[in-house]
Amino acid sequence: MADKVITLAHGNGGKFSQGLIDEIFVKTFNNQHLNELNDSAFIQMKSSNIAFTTDSYVVNPIFFPGGNIGKLAVTGTINDLAVCGAIPAYLSVGMIIEEGFKIDNLKTIVNSMYETAEQAGVKIVTGDTKVVPKGNADGIYINTSGVGYYPDGSNPGSIDNIKIGDKIIINGEFGSHGVAILTARSDFPLQTELISDCACLNSLISDVLGSIPAGIIRIMRDPTRGGIATTLNEFVLNRNYSIEINETELPIRDEVKSICEMTGFDPLYLANEGKVLIVCSADYSKEVLNAMQKHPLGRNAVAIGEVTEKSAGQLLLKTTIGGTRIIDRLIGNMLPRIC
Amino acid sequence: MADKVITLAHGNGGKFSQGLIDEIFVKTFNNQHLNELNDSAFIQMKSSNIAFTTDSYVVNPIFFPGGNIGKLAVTGTINDLAVCGAIPAYLSVGMIIEEGFKIDNLKTIVNSMYETAEQAGVKIVTGDTKVVPKGNADGIYINTSGVGYYPDGSNPGSIDNIKIGDKIIINGEFGSHGVAILTARSDFPLQTELISDCACLNSLISDVLGSIPAGIIRIMRDPTRGGIATTLNEFVLNRNYSIEINETELPIRDEVKSICEMTGFDPLYLANEGKVLIVCSADYSKEVLNAMQKHPLGRNAVAIGEVTEKSAGQLLLKTTIGGTRIIDRLIGNMLPRIC
Repeated sequence: MADKVITLAHGNGGKFSQGLIDEIFVKTFNNQHLNELNDSAFIQMKSSNIAFTTDSYVVNPIFFPGGNIGKLAVTGTINDLAVCGAIPAYLSVGMIIEEGFKIDNLKTIVNSMYETAEQAGVKIVTGDTKVVPKGNADGIYINTSGVGYYPDGSNPGSIDNIKIGDKIIINGEFGSHGVAILTARSDFPLQTELISDCACLNSLISDVLGSIPAGIIRIMRDPTRGGIATTLNEFVLNRNYSIEINETELPIRDEVKSICEMTGFDPLYLANEGKVLIVCSADYSKEVLNAMQKHPLGRNAVAIGEVTEKSAGQLLLKTTIGGTRIIDRLIGNMLPRIC
Repeated sequence: MADKVITLAHGNGGKFSQGLIDEIFVKTFNNQHLNELNDSAFIQMKSSNIAFTTDSYVVNPIFFPGGNIGKLAVTGTINDLAVCGAIPAYLSVGMIIEEGFKIDNLKTIVNSMYETAEQAGVKIVTGDTKVVPKGNADGIYINTSGVGYYPDGSNPGSIDNIKIGDKIIINGEFGSHGVAILTARSDFPLQTELISDCACLNSLISDVLGSIPAGIIRIMRDPTRGGIATTLNEFVLNRNYSIEINETELPIRDEVKSICEMTGFDPLYLANEGKVLIVCSADYSKEVLNAMQKHPLGRNAVAIGEVTEKSAGQLLLKTTIGGTRIIDRLIGNMLPRIC
């Protein structure tokens, strides 16, 4: 069994497809919605106000320190719902598998998906598997889409809510996912102890939202591809304010710093998979920080900057030596297949 | 512009990604949900009873007679919602694009997606694009997930509802999609006039459901990968009844028959992308057929068989010369990348 691999017949919709679905997906994800095996899952949401999101995951390598493509696919989509203020409820899984992929690896990935979703209180309720001939993919690609609901009085947040004076808060050290993927690649010459920060943020966010009145949080985003520089630039693009972050406050692990110094990558642009950037009213920034710091995923939460009227539409970095530098949008190529 | 191609920088989350999103996706799909560009789309459903589905599309070639991968991705997911008795409402789009893919081709595909969704009354509200290095995919793969809602009194249907004596109805000739893809491949030596049946079935299904009392339709399915033989086998698997279809009633185009004779493919296993199989109470089969035949996508609707107690768990074919043959589940390999 250890050397069994996916064949084209596993993707033809017939007996082998059914065997794969029964043996791996239904057995692992095991829930009434999926077990029905209808073309759509029938789900009863707690509200008709819904958040809906999708992401495809093409990360290379598929197994990396701190996770694998399956865990990543579940956390990433749960986080996209959670940062929009919704309660993540159900996920779909669409797999594109290359002929010859090891079935044991598929099982490991599917188990990770189940465990990650289960811990986050989310069910995987519908799925699809396609098999492509050898050379038409690279192992496995996974799409997860998700639906969540909005409890009464909650809202998705919006860049339009941001006000001058608001604080920018992050739940801990950033850049770990990017560095973990980089160093896990077979052609990278160094090793570190660093693992990806890959984690579901819905419980942390729920704690934060529960600790303050509605409207205090202007917007939340998870700074994945393109890192915190990209997300913060999206917050200021074409606006009449800027965001200024303080280099001295930026939480970056030593391992991330040293890999960045060696490779020339800038940690501000490195991907994260367990980080949330929160823009909140300055009046309540202490409460937000307190709520975060009580949660295992927010112990090192810190305010890294604020919204300022100093200039318009720019992300500014106040450097350790007192200067100010513009942090531009990412232009050239960063690491491909980071998530 | 005609020779512009997708680069890895289009997938890094930065300025080029944003340009691609703005120029192609937002401009084409243009709606308030997508334009917000949040990590999740905020949608207000007409009910909290929801259908949720996903499918990845890896069809080769991506442009084929009667459609392209984009049209297919929208119709396929809309149909998966519609055959479960839901009203399709919103779609997500996740694209995996190979470096070097022509931007003009992407535009054509995205335009098809918009037009197909628009005609079906469905909005594309959230999306994601990943770019993989050359050689890690084959042009473009598209995942669409969809959410629909259940109006009061409607239900998703179930194989458990099937009763002995029920009729099996299909909305017209089957096998066209499979043959259209086969003959469109560059290595196929013959040409036909045949086009894929690729079409959104939600309007047809809505007409049928509106013409009869609730509960008359036991279950509906769109017989895509694996064809009608695969879907009908799923209806009988481990059940104490069989389904018997009549060869003389089976609607198959002459072009499909002749390509099958030449290649050895069996039309019963060929993929369809605009067909629905309906199992309904015999008492109302005429009403169902009438409703279908009034719709452009059901003009050639016909009852092809019925549920019988003759034997258990089998799909039977009553042949033109009066014999009976078991139509088994698909085992070996059919055409890979058919959808």
